[in-house]
Amino acid sequence: MQVNRIPILKLYNCLLVSIQFELDDKTALQFQEDLLKKIHATGASGVVIDLTSVEVIDSFIAKILGDVINMSKLMGAKVVLTGIQPAVAITLVELGIELQGVQTALDLEKGLEQLKLELGD
Amino acid sequence: MQVNRIPILKLYNCLLVSIQFELDDKTALQFQEDLLKKIHATGASGVVIDLTSVEVIDSFIAKILGDVINMSKLMGAKVVLTGIQPAVAITLVELGIELQGVQTALDLEKGLEQLKLELGD
Repeated sequence: MQVNRIPILKLYNCLLVSIQFELDDKTALQFQEDLLKKIHATGASGVVIDLTSVEVIDSFIAKILGDVINMSKLMGAKVVLTGIQPAVAITLVELGIELQGVQTALDLEKGLEQLKLELGD
Repeated sequence: MQVNRIPILKLYNCLLVSIQFELDDKTALQFQEDLLKKIHATGASGVVIDLTSVEVIDSFIAKILGDVINMSKLMGAKVVLTGIQPAVAITLVELGIELQGVQTALDLEKGLEQLKLELGD
């Protein structure tokens, strides 16, 4: 099976990712690896992951997402999740996955602005 | 066969697209449709298409790309192509596809700046 790869855009010192289709497990794992490699390669200090187009999330994908956020933090990059839809927020809380300490914002623009403020540029 | 879809990010009044894998014909056609719909839906006045990760391009994909740029212009959006690699530039010129009148820039940041200047914001 061909694994989809999620494009990761570099804009100044931030990486932008927009997830616009339902993630399957392999794609999510590939994304995790790709994002960490890209943080390393670019030396990005911030990451915005936009979930605006994600309408459903399951426990495995939620765990991967939580993991990649923690891993990115360990590597020194701040992560902001944006555009979490009502159904996704409900699922996350009901699954007990509250993504503790993860910053969120309403949309990509606000997420980037939040990062800019925090990174002080 | 599942068609890959290329995520299109909206940032302020621009759309950002980063093509990070070789496009097959179906994906290219799907991208054309998705981009035009997104321009319509968001009222974006600029589009940056980043080809940094594209190492090879064939005549069909080059034509689709040229077409989508012209279509976007017709809809009122300025398009900037960024990150065209040497091999892609060589192929385009050798195929006689010179993407006349298409603006280009070295990378995503410079493309966005060019658009901002032109759109006057």
